[in-house]
Amino acid sequence: MSKRLAAEFFGTFWLVFGGCGAAVLAAGFPELGIGFAGVALAFGLTVVTMAYAVGSISGGHFNPAVSLGMAVGGRLDWKDLLPYWIAQVIGAIVAAAALFAIASGKAGWEPGGFATNGYGALSPGGYSLHAALLIEMILTAGFIVVILGSTAKGAPAGFGPLAIGLCLTLIHLVSIPVTNTSVNPARSTGVALFAETAALPQLWAFWVAPLIGAAIGAAIWRFLLAGDEGAV
Amino acid sequence: MSKRLAAEFFGTFWLVFGGCGAAVLAAGFPELGIGFAGVALAFGLTVVTMAYAVGSISGGHFNPAVSLGMAVGGRLDWKDLLPYWIAQVIGAIVAAAALFAIASGKAGWEPGGFATNGYGALSPGGYSLHAALLIEMILTAGFIVVILGSTAKGAPAGFGPLAIGLCLTLIHLVSIPVTNTSVNPARSTGVALFAETAALPQLWAFWVAPLIGAAIGAAIWRFLLAGDEGAV
Amino acid sequence: MSKRLAAEFFGTFWLVFGGCGAAVLAAGFPELGIGFAGVALAFGLTVVTMAYAVGSISGGHFNPAVSLGMAVGGRLDWKDLLPYWIAQVIGAIVAAAALFAIASGKAGWEPGGFATNGYGALSPGGYSLHAALLIEMILTAGFIVVILGSTAKGAPAGFGPLAIGLCLTLIHLVSIPVTNTSVNPARSTGVALFAETAALPQLWAFWVAPLIGAAIGAAIWRFLLAGDEGAV
Amino acid sequence: MSKRLAAEFFGTFWLVFGGCGAAVLAAGFPELGIGFAGVALAFGLTVVTMAYAVGSISGGHFNPAVSLGMAVGGRLDWKDLLPYWIAQVIGAIVAAAALFAIASGKAGWEPGGFATNGYGALSPGGYSLHAALLIEMILTAGFIVVILGSTAKGAPAGFGPLAIGLCLTLIHLVSIPVTNTSVNPARSTGVALFAETAALPQLWAFWVAPLIGAAIGAAIWRFLLAGDEGAV
Repeated sequence: MSKRLAAEFFGTFWLVFGGCGAAVLAAGFPELGIGFAGVALAFGLTVVTMAYAVGSISGGHFNPAVSLGMAVGGRLDWKDLLPYWIAQVIGAIVAAAALFAIASGKAGWEPGGFATNGYGALSPGGYSLHAALLIEMILTAGFIVVILGSTAKGAPAGFGPLAIGLCLTLIHLVSIPVTNTSVNPARSTGVALFAETAALPQLWAFWVAPLIGAAIGAAIWRFLLAGDEGAV
Repeated sequence: MSKRLAAEFFGTFWLVFGGCGAAVLAAGFPELGIGFAGVALAFGLTVVTMAYAVGSISGGHFNPAVSLGMAVGGRLDWKDLLPYWIAQVIGAIVAAAALFAIASGKAGWEPGGFATNGYGALSPGGYSLHAALLIEMILTAGFIVVILGSTAKGAPAGFGPLAIGLCLTLIHLVSIPVTNTSVNPARSTGVALFAETAALPQLWAFWVAPLIGAAIGAAIWRFLLAGDEGAV
Repeated sequence: MSKRLAAEFFGTFWLVFGGCGAAVLAAGFPELGIGFAGVALAFGLTVVTMAYAVGSISGGHFNPAVSLGMAVGGRLDWKDLLPYWIAQVIGAIVAAAALFAIASGKAGWEPGGFATNGYGALSPGGYSLHAALLIEMILTAGFIVVILGSTAKGAPAGFGPLAIGLCLTLIHLVSIPVTNTSVNPARSTGVALFAETAALPQLWAFWVAPLIGAAIGAAIWRFLLAGDEGAV
Repeated sequence: MSKRLAAEFFGTFWLVFGGCGAAVLAAGFPELGIGFAGVALAFGLTVVTMAYAVGSISGGHFNPAVSLGMAVGGRLDWKDLLPYWIAQVIGAIVAAAALFAIASGKAGWEPGGFATNGYGALSPGGYSLHAALLIEMILTAGFIVVILGSTAKGAPAGFGPLAIGLCLTLIHLVSIPVTNTSVNPARSTGVALFAETAALPQLWAFWVAPLIGAAIGAAIWRFLLAGDEGAV
């Protein structure tokens, strides 16, 4: 069990350090910055890389909503859910702290939003809470369908981490303007602790919506697509 | 059969929600927007992800032109064609409605073209109907050759969804300026219902050209490249 | 043999139509254009997609320099070289004609350089003939090493088309500013026939440098890396 | 042994010529340049392509820090470490010289930083030495975890080069603004010899931090994630 939790800790560290790091350090660099598309690619590649590296150890969730979806989908023992969540949240917080230490190595830097998720005034494009909850639920549901489907017995072997990571890239390509893209409560929590903005009071939304979406996605897969045999 | 249609419904939902969502929400975001290249990547990744997830259930078409091409190519029973088309079009319409609900969560937002396809005055770059029909036919034909070829027995196993999805990215990299890229009548139909522009009167072109192109592509594969044995 | 030549014809058509099409139609679109990086991705994806689709039929060269490299590397019968070259060049010319027909569907459009390759005054960044010849030779040599290596017996099965196509993306990411990137005499020839600029008098360079580079790359693979057994 | 060293020489040549070449020639091209995201993709694709091509010959390190990590992780014989380092550094220097010859083929070109790595005044974003050392160590450690994990027995076969190369892309997406991204002492050394800036006096940092990070990453993999069996 300790190796599985270590894998979730390091994987979630990598997701937050790489994805939020690209957003904080590189997205808006003058003229040559990577923009939202580069951030989307970075988030996706954190999962592609670590899912190939440690996916065989822990399943490679790196995300409390994914772990819930795997439990609903019959792929994770329910008693493992809380330990996974704890390892993921700690990994995210440590990554945010490391990123903060590096970003503050630039004279005059201020954390601002620090790549946090938000709605209303804290949404990059000024989207409402209603829009934020809806898109986070839909995208997390689709994410779980892709995870369960691409790792099911009938799917081509070995391509799961690629499909899953690129799914996270897709999700960011769509939704950064709306919520700065969560679909991952640990990622939202890690950076919210370091932001200057009022990200913490909005953090509930980025636990509730991804978790509901994950449960819906797992149910769609299990009952409408795969049937009972697909859950194993 | 119900699982196959559910797979086509959810897959086409994902294609329209993800691809058109990236176009509507993120392409033109000030300074950091993802541009046409990001939209191209998003469309392709919707297919990469869902084809790995549910491709083994329904074939992973998500597109009436692809279903026609598979029928002509001998991979889909002709009696399944109409049910597939209905599931795809409904999935596209539901996705467009969900996207509309989210996009309207931004104060002052107006749908405008809403990522619809068009020619003449509704072409992003002002291209003629002639150019629009020609490029949609050529690109759909090539798309079908790639689908039939990359999933044929002689091709490397498991790489089909990757090649097919990235083919859709390539198609968008070329043709967004001309027609906003259809090659998929369901995608064109879904968003056309919500646009403020006169997209509906032009919708015929994005059924006719992709369907003709798909038939041509399937014929090229079957008679010039694979021979009889490649059709199975 | 006819199927092999058909595969080379359609594959080279796709490479030129997709790659040069992205350059002509989409690279410089105001604000949202795909830029050099999008063009690089498009060229690479033409090869990823068609090499998975028809690679098992013809080898998936789509490029006279690649065919030469395969002959030097022992993978193509020398008597097949000229027929391959002819099919490739015809495919490239037909693709350039189709692209011209589409691009001219925009009022006021002028072909200009039409995505041709060039040096000196016709180099995008104004690079000299010396620099153009050197970079084309080096990049084609590396391309051939990647092709021969990634499809050798010891390499992971099935990944060849992905590695080879992404290699073409890499090559474009480096060298579009220098020569607009050839490494493919058929691609250079097809569009040169339609350009308004003096691309034809410079065409020799984009036959000579890629062919020399291909021979060098095949020799490096065969004599320094793989040894005799790697040539088969 | 000579083929292994030839593979490391050519692979490192390709990494520096392709990655630094994209940075020097294409990143800042007016309007259509590839930016940091394109450079990140180029560096990653040099490894994807050459690791598929020659990875089965030498392991495909192309990086002294990776070779150290493989030695600590039990995948490289310690007596091979120094020969590998020498082949890699020579390959990097030859690549930088070739790139210099090409770049100087543009009238009025000046080398400036020539894609070197730096901190303080030589950091693209003006980051401190402290931040530079920290991010180079963290990213190299993660890189080694991904390399050891994705090529371990339990990981999906054949995907290692893809995961490893895309990991290098991710690393660049995060850290170009901080250090111009090294994680590879050979890459830093090759271009430092040709820069007009004071890159050479800072070169020590891009040997020390990647090497320490690599040792840490290998230790994390071996003792926290894989256990003894994963080291083989």
